[in-house]
Amino acid sequence: MKQRRVYTAGELARKLGLELQGDADVQVNGLATLRTAGPGKLSFLSSPSYVSHLSACQASIVIIHPDQAHLSPCTSLLSSAPYVSYAHASQLFQIDNQTATDGVHASAVISPDADIAPGVSIGANAVIEEGVRIGSDSYIGPGVYIGSDCIIGNNCRIYANASIYHSVVLGARVIIHSGAVIGADGFGFAFDGKQFVKISQLGGVNIGNDVEIGAGSTIDRGSLDDTLIAEGVKIDNQVQIAHNCRIGKHTIICGCVGIAGSTHIGAYCTLGGGVGIVGHIKLCDRVVVSGMSLVSKSINKPGMYSSGTRLMASAEWKKNIVRLGQLNQMSKRLQELERLTNK
Amino acid sequence: MKQRRVYTAGELARKLGLELQGDADVQVNGLATLRTAGPGKLSFLSSPSYVSHLSACQASIVIIHPDQAHLSPCTSLLSSAPYVSYAHASQLFQIDNQTATDGVHASAVISPDADIAPGVSIGANAVIEEGVRIGSDSYIGPGVYIGSDCIIGNNCRIYANASIYHSVVLGARVIIHSGAVIGADGFGFAFDGKQFVKISQLGGVNIGNDVEIGAGSTIDRGSLDDTLIAEGVKIDNQVQIAHNCRIGKHTIICGCVGIAGSTHIGAYCTLGGGVGIVGHIKLCDRVVVSGMSLVSKSINKPGMYSSGTRLMASAEWKKNIVRLGQLNQMSKRLQELERLTNK
Amino acid sequence: MKQRRVYTAGELARKLGLELQGDADVQVNGLATLRTAGPGKLSFLSSPSYVSHLSACQASIVIIHPDQAHLSPCTSLLSSAPYVSYAHASQLFQIDNQTATDGVHASAVISPDADIAPGVSIGANAVIEEGVRIGSDSYIGPGVYIGSDCIIGNNCRIYANASIYHSVVLGARVIIHSGAVIGADGFGFAFDGKQFVKISQLGGVNIGNDVEIGAGSTIDRGSLDDTLIAEGVKIDNQVQIAHNCRIGKHTIICGCVGIAGSTHIGAYCTLGGGVGIVGHIKLCDRVVVSGMSLVSKSINKPGMYSSGTRLMASAEWKKNIVRLGQLNQMSKRLQELERLTNK
Repeated sequence: MKQRRVYTAGELARKLGLELQGDADVQVNGLATLRTAGPGKLSFLSSPSYVSHLSACQASIVIIHPDQAHLSPCTSLLSSAPYVSYAHASQLFQIDNQTATDGVHASAVISPDADIAPGVSIGANAVIEEGVRIGSDSYIGPGVYIGSDCIIGNNCRIYANASIYHSVVLGARVIIHSGAVIGADGFGFAFDGKQFVKISQLGGVNIGNDVEIGAGSTIDRGSLDDTLIAEGVKIDNQVQIAHNCRIGKHTIICGCVGIAGSTHIGAYCTLGGGVGIVGHIKLCDRVVVSGMSLVSKSINKPGMYSSGTRLMASAEWKKNIVRLGQLNQMSKRLQELERLTNK
Repeated sequence: MKQRRVYTAGELARKLGLELQGDADVQVNGLATLRTAGPGKLSFLSSPSYVSHLSACQASIVIIHPDQAHLSPCTSLLSSAPYVSYAHASQLFQIDNQTATDGVHASAVISPDADIAPGVSIGANAVIEEGVRIGSDSYIGPGVYIGSDCIIGNNCRIYANASIYHSVVLGARVIIHSGAVIGADGFGFAFDGKQFVKISQLGGVNIGNDVEIGAGSTIDRGSLDDTLIAEGVKIDNQVQIAHNCRIGKHTIICGCVGIAGSTHIGAYCTLGGGVGIVGHIKLCDRVVVSGMSLVSKSINKPGMYSSGTRLMASAEWKKNIVRLGQLNQMSKRLQELERLTNK
Repeated sequence: MKQRRVYTAGELARKLGLELQGDADVQVNGLATLRTAGPGKLSFLSSPSYVSHLSACQASIVIIHPDQAHLSPCTSLLSSAPYVSYAHASQLFQIDNQTATDGVHASAVISPDADIAPGVSIGANAVIEEGVRIGSDSYIGPGVYIGSDCIIGNNCRIYANASIYHSVVLGARVIIHSGAVIGADGFGFAFDGKQFVKISQLGGVNIGNDVEIGAGSTIDRGSLDDTLIAEGVKIDNQVQIAHNCRIGKHTIICGCVGIAGSTHIGAYCTLGGGVGIVGHIKLCDRVVVSGMSLVSKSINKPGMYSSGTRLMASAEWKKNIVRLGQLNQMSKRLQELERLTNK
């Protein structure tokens, strides 16, 4: 078992750039919510709805907004953005789980002409093909496959059993989780009257700095040009991004989203879980789509969009939904009634 | 080719704890439905709608309810729950497909301080990190990755190329299929005004006894506490369970379901295929959600729930669905007509 | 970096079986769209909507319909089906990305009784179990797992880290992308009053010639008989096909589709992205289902089908969708008004 990290309040104030209120020597060895934190833990107040948890909180240190600091029962770190400070603090407590594969494991199969920078860690049974370049301090997990001529930036983390096809380019600090597949063939065929003829997918995938790609997500290579994921995009698990798509900077894509081919998504968008987006359309910047909506045409105006229906008890749902199939008819009947009544 | 297993009716009666009616010495070497079974096969009648197949059935042995036993044309095994007896019988005919990797394969990379119980089978090129404990008679398939400090119970089966991150705990008899990823980072970020700052996911995943997890499914680790899957939960393929979720005992989750973060599902629930559930809500015990429904708020009452619309021919659908966008307006017009008419 | 392939117009005309108009010696080293192609590139005009791009096109060669050939600004290859000819041409420019693993890599773990035909390439750390037969010139990528007694046809391509369970049969020229899982257990359980008893899945998976299966897709083995995928079926990424399904010839299944157990899909169908299909139903040939629709009963008539609602701004959507829950009531009120008005 690896040892938990321990910090004093003074160390945390310095590392997080926050003002300290209270005992600089009190120690914490982990993070917890206001409700579950015991002595020796760091906690945080990021939402007004949790203020009531503060008085009974057992944490040794709390990250808190200066305006609420007088309510803190313990040593406090004052932050104008407590949730962001919590994010930075969480990184300090991340247990290092790659020590077992530090350096290049003897069982990894690495092409002799691959170019591996100093400080790179490559796990057991990983396979690195010819022409690959890997930037400094990147971590390639066990069983990862990296196809020929890929370029991996500095400080990337690619987790166990992820697969990257040939000629994919990753920026710096890209994180790819297990089971993700980057650069598989786009889904392109030409029907010759009898069967579908495969269109070879000759483009690549280009992924910007600070992108994170969740477990089991798939991003296909372009048919002629590259599929593009701009810097700062965060992609959750089991997301499918088809060939030739372009995703704008700092867009958030929640789990199970599917985006069909050649669609362009703007910057700072949020796609809720399970959203589907048809191919060959464009979404402008700052579009929010609620969970499981289908986007079937381009969106040119920022804002929030939805489709689908609300959940109902199934018995009630059946009665209403059968009427949906009569809705056009109902509309005409309503019109006729209005004509008669206004007569 | 491995040999099929052969049992006599007498052996089956004893192994399944069922009463025998007919020839104890008749042999069967496999299972089939009433319609497709030939001589030498075991079949079963579990639904009244298949009674008509019984008379022409060629099977050598049939599992059947005592009330219908007089209709059986062959040797019968009498069961008050024929479908459950079929399930038990099917396990007797499972071909053992792990002999090629019995024991620990020489190519597996196992940390010297991992604790591997007797009878464990570890496949070729599997990677077991430091601090891992694996219970007796568990099977770890080829290419599987198990991160540091995981605890795997007895009699687990983890199939080829599944990936388990560090500090995940599995109970006994847990089955994890290929491509599944357990314990990847939850999807947590804090927006600092310009970009999203990663929140390190410091919790784990805790999975109870007798849980099965389908191919390509993903269960994220908790942000602070553990993601919890209670005993007996069955999870189909390509299911996504986000960080901090809790799934109650013996709940069934069909394929392609997505559950957003911090949601709690009760016991004995059934989530149909493709269901989506938003984050931070609770479903009580014994909730059934029909396929592809979106659950957008908590459910406090057992029962069946649905959302979505029925399938229609697209031409008809378009006419009706355009009216859905006018429905609020229609409702107001209806009200006005009622006012006029009642005047 | 591998060298790009170079062809003259004359070579291309011969290889693609097309009539040449212009300079037989002009060379191209890649494919591009009409808009992005520069000198040295091959392009194509497949849709009337791109005719306007033709005059300014810089490509050295264009594939074009004879009726439009007079508009071509460069050497032309005349095709009655330019999009199909583009598909064939694209295959000529596919960069060969398997040279690093040509032949059988020393680190692959292959059962001594597996039967590997001449010309087969097996990547690093792949695992081939006993009784497997692999046809000539097939490519098995790094980290691929092939379970016991599988039969793989000629000229198949199975990409890195795909997993195939025991006793799966693939025809010739089958392509399986990374992360796909073929032959995992179907989702079958019998409830014994307290818990779910696993039904061992004793069938296999049988996949016809020329099938392609996308990254992260999962096809479960049958419970008693085989799950069947007929020849020419094309399956995109993250598709889930449950046990006992049968998919007819040349059907197209787009990304994120889920098909529940024992459903039969006809030939030449198209299932749009994210479509869900319930279990135990049948779709006839030539059915088209639009994206994210739920198919909840059998379809006996070819044509296009849809469910769901259109996307709206969320504020407008909320107003309308709350009325959907009142629709049955509205219908009755409308009927009453008609009664009163016609009185």
